Amino acid sequence: MHAVDCKALAEKITDEIHNETKSMDRKPVLAMFLVGKDPSSEIYIHKKEEQCIRAGIESRKIILSENITHRNLLAEIDKLNGNADIDAILIQLPLPKQIIEREALERIDPGKDVDCLHPLNFGLFCEYGSEEARVIPVTALAVMKILKECDAAIKGQDVVVVGSSNIAGKPIALMLVEKGATVTICHDKTKDLKRYTRKADILVVAAGKKHLVTKNMVKYGAIVIDVGINRENGIMRGDVDFDNVSEVASYVTPVPGGVGPITVATLLENVLRLSYRKQSNGIVPKPDIEII
Amino acid sequence: MHAVDCKALAEKITDEIHNETKSMDRKPVLAMFLVGKDPSSEIYIHKKEEQCIRAGIESRKIILSENITHRNLLAEIDKLNGNADIDAILIQLPLPKQIIEREALERIDPGKDVDCLHPLNFGLFCEYGSEEARVIPVTALAVMKILKECDAAIKGQDVVVVGSSNIAGKPIALMLVEKGATVTICHDKTKDLKRYTRKADILVVAAGKKHLVTKNMVKYGAIVIDVGINRENGIMRGDVDFDNVSEVASYVTPVPGGVGPITVATLLENVLRLSYRKQSNGIVPKPDIEII
Repeated sequence: MHAVDCKALAEKITDEIHNETKSMDRKPVLAMFLVGKDPSSEIYIHKKEEQCIRAGIESRKIILSENITHRNLLAEIDKLNGNADIDAILIQLPLPKQIIEREALERIDPGKDVDCLHPLNFGLFCEYGSEEARVIPVTALAVMKILKECDAAIKGQDVVVVGSSNIAGKPIALMLVEKGATVTICHDKTKDLKRYTRKADILVVAAGKKHLVTKNMVKYGAIVIDVGINRENGIMRGDVDFDNVSEVASYVTPVPGGVGPITVATLLENVLRLSYRKQSNGIVPKPDIEII
Repeated sequence: MHAVDCKALAEKITDEIHNETKSMDRKPVLAMFLVGKDPSSEIYIHKKEEQCIRAGIESRKIILSENITHRNLLAEIDKLNGNADIDAILIQLPLPKQIIEREALERIDPGKDVDCLHPLNFGLFCEYGSEEARVIPVTALAVMKILKECDAAIKGQDVVVVGSSNIAGKPIALMLVEKGATVTICHDKTKDLKRYTRKADILVVAAGKKHLVTKNMVKYGAIVIDVGINRENGIMRGDVDFDNVSEVASYVTPVPGGVGPITVATLLENVLRLSYRKQSNGIVPKPDIEII
């Protein structure tokens, strides 16, 4: 086990993608919907745009009014579904309250669903695993990349995942089971959380609760992956009390600068997967970069 | 907590379905593919046919040769997909080796996929939970029915699921997480299985390994649900050493006569869901029977 420089890892992945895109007949194209003016969403979109440049991917930002009707948003999605230039579509969440998020996500052509949130893609991933999936949930893949980079054993290890969301906890848990870990899924109904976290060889925290995990909840030598993003007065903090937990864990990912940048890189890997599949009419769906 | 008569519970569910079907404009129709002559498959199909009669559901059995080509099987599935009389389609597993199981399962119209094995339906279930799903994996639903019938608390309970298959372990684990349990998924890579099973308030075993779970692996007073089916010289045995484990558990489901008959009833509940959705053009997808 050794610590990982997550920013450097994100750059390495992005450079590998660039290596692929530069030999493609045409650059992959990612379209991103930004609905309204959520400041965090604007930051995230900006980061994705920056990394698209590094990866040799063309990004197109579609800015829509905070007040757009649900019906009109669906119509905008339909336009991009029907546009052969677009390989991948992303809807930056959260969406304004008049939008039915699930319907918007299901409206994206599954062949362009870069976030793996269409139920068909989510189902392919849950049922057949990461190697058979069309796209891979970006946070789950980011966690696996970090674990690989720090040479962590996974098979037979005790893993605790805190959180059971569709974008983080559930796919992270399933991907770790796929790779042979014994996984416990904890959440806000869990009684005595530390009873579970204290025995974990690998602890992944995706609860969305600032500094939920403290030193006394972590086993000596554990690897702790912090997926949380909690903003308070403009400062971003994780779900793990980093300084404190670092005293017992063998490695803790920081927030910011940990999982976050890698999820941007894994998102771009999904763009590449979708673009390859499209350019090859579905025959060669897998790019030549290693999944985990 | 009290013991459950699983056969009686299966009959109760089937009678509730009959109560619904008798007031429908037309009987729901379930088509079942039996490919080849696997004796266990023949028994299962026969049991489903019997219960269809009790539930007021019409069953149609399509017997295909052991040697049918993959392409011809897909063509047979297409025929039923296009037949407006058919509400639900089931392919009895396992399939002969020339058939690519995944492609056959994905070929079923998701609107007729009674076993919830099409990735779209599996994804809807995994992503949005049992109440938003079109159909529910039958074994997961059977486990929930048993837990409800024996008045088991679920929220905040420690649950261990042994096995991570698509038809049992994965959906069982996700459904229990949905209902608020803290769930550990164990499998054949798990080290020291009893370390996990011994702390479980509810232990669900779906490993497919005869008498894997013995008395010393079970907590005093636990509820043990045995999903295993292991045939040996014509005798069916579970994954749990029933007599032995019964000495410590507060309740153990038997094999045969436990989870099995209830999965037939929950399958017919899925037929009803699909049929209602079809007869109402998707507007009223949920029958008036309680899901769990």
